[in-house]
Amino acid sequence: MYDLIIIGSGPAGLSAAVYGKRAGLNLLIIEEKPMSGGQVLNTSEVDNYLGMPGIGGFDMGVKFREHADAAGAEFKTAAVTSIRDGGEMKIVETSDGTSYEAKTLILATGAEHAPLGVPGEEEFKGRGVSYCATCDGAFFRGKDVAVVGGGDVAVEDAVYLARMCRKVYLIHRRDSLRAAKGLQDKLTACENIEILWNRTVKDIHGSGSVEAVTLLHVTEQAEEELAVEGVFIAVGMHPNTEAFRDTVPCDEKGYVIAGEDCVTKAEGIFAAGDLRTKQVRQIITAVADGACAVASAERYLTAYK
Amino acid sequence: MYDLIIIGSGPAGLSAAVYGKRAGLNLLIIEEKPMSGGQVLNTSEVDNYLGMPGIGGFDMGVKFREHADAAGAEFKTAAVTSIRDGGEMKIVETSDGTSYEAKTLILATGAEHAPLGVPGEEEFKGRGVSYCATCDGAFFRGKDVAVVGGGDVAVEDAVYLARMCRKVYLIHRRDSLRAAKGLQDKLTACENIEILWNRTVKDIHGSGSVEAVTLLHVTEQAEEELAVEGVFIAVGMHPNTEAFRDTVPCDEKGYVIAGEDCVTKAEGIFAAGDLRTKQVRQIITAVADGACAVASAERYLTAYK
Repeated sequence: MYDLIIIGSGPAGLSAAVYGKRAGLNLLIIEEKPMSGGQVLNTSEVDNYLGMPGIGGFDMGVKFREHADAAGAEFKTAAVTSIRDGGEMKIVETSDGTSYEAKTLILATGAEHAPLGVPGEEEFKGRGVSYCATCDGAFFRGKDVAVVGGGDVAVEDAVYLARMCRKVYLIHRRDSLRAAKGLQDKLTACENIEILWNRTVKDIHGSGSVEAVTLLHVTEQAEEELAVEGVFIAVGMHPNTEAFRDTVPCDEKGYVIAGEDCVTKAEGIFAAGDLRTKQVRQIITAVADGACAVASAERYLTAYK
Repeated sequence: MYDLIIIGSGPAGLSAAVYGKRAGLNLLIIEEKPMSGGQVLNTSEVDNYLGMPGIGGFDMGVKFREHADAAGAEFKTAAVTSIRDGGEMKIVETSDGTSYEAKTLILATGAEHAPLGVPGEEEFKGRGVSYCATCDGAFFRGKDVAVVGGGDVAVEDAVYLARMCRKVYLIHRRDSLRAAKGLQDKLTACENIEILWNRTVKDIHGSGSVEAVTLLHVTEQAEEELAVEGVFIAVGMHPNTEAFRDTVPCDEKGYVIAGEDCVTKAEGIFAAGDLRTKQVRQIITAVADGACAVASAERYLTAYK
């Protein structure tokens, strides 16, 4: 039986592995894909992880994994299908039929940004298409960009981008926003934001990087061309917690309920990174969670038998 | 008037500067010392900041500062003597008589580990003397070490170190521990921990790195020599919040009261890093706080006027 099994090998899981190994814990990381790093791998450039300005996402993922390897972490590639809470023993079941036992678990499978699902979106990811204004906004200083969505995050992103971009178009499929009233007031106060109501994005195109989007006016069924160098997609996020929901209490959106200490409502099970209830989902906050989750796991293990 | 003034240039302050500049905020960092980095600068090696295995503390401080410079942050060297909360305008007073105005403040002046104040302590810092078992324990794998103190942190450190060190001596000046009962039970259950009651450390010595400590038995006034390669000092921590305590509510130990979102009880003033109430004080959690404090400051600024 392991002291600790970490499920997921993004920034939170790898940081937990480093802290856990340094704490002398006998641990295993189970990762679904054969390449560690999580969402970071698909990011073209990361410029806000202190000490590593302007690093490529792929390089960052490799560096993170190398650090966990140097700490002596043991990895296993498998898809986790469910976890069971047997009190002092937690059981992790994987799709190849193998199960693993541990005294504690750290859940670190992250969350995914919902895609628009339009032509050009996948092709231009990291070359004009982004899912995070805080992460990538600074790369579009002085440029024209579009934000797609109508909720709080979309409006916050538009206001954030208005401080650095020349012009921000907010593209929304309906004729009103779901976002909070206060946010909407702020939005309309920004002179360089224009709301394009009743439009959906039909495709994203350019040569090499994004140059324009084709919009479809939903009531008039007319197509329009909009020249932008950046498209920020803010149509929702989905936590990767399906395998855990029967065992660990989650909120209505599926995020594991846990605070800064990463302690969930299931004793001995901890949640680190984007999959837990939190406000700021950034690489650096996921990595910090790895440290906090191990500190909480150690505290639990200290009381253990 | 600045959008944001950050007080302190350790990991939390520098991370806030990077996030703040990337968010397009007009900001100033005020640092007391002419060299940024905070406690990190005095750390010989840092091995738990994901992506930078085994980096020297001084190099890390330089890298952190370079990142803030690359983001375009403006620095001013001055000692902050007080802050005033004028509602929509916050005023920062410095010892040279200058005052600065901002819409928001991020307090990031950190905390200091209390020293023992014995010969050899300063000399062997980073070469056997440590103030953080989580940070440095792994460097003493298989070795004999001493922990000095009798509170929760000292006992937690001893239990932590017992998992990787050959032998751990807990040196305490009294004949009983202040630490919680559950922790004490765990301590006595560790076979490789020996408690040396009624002893104080007289000095720490060695050639190049720590080789032994001289203990003084407080009741018998006898001196003893104890061969150890590491001395972990856990006799308390002191938050650097004197200049803020009249303006921002702190707990009984002087830590600024603020949760993961870094929001203090004074509107528009945020607290990031070791100086706020939190459980895990690590470089990575301070850096994450920088991101969270800026996110909260932005939210406040969005509602501002």
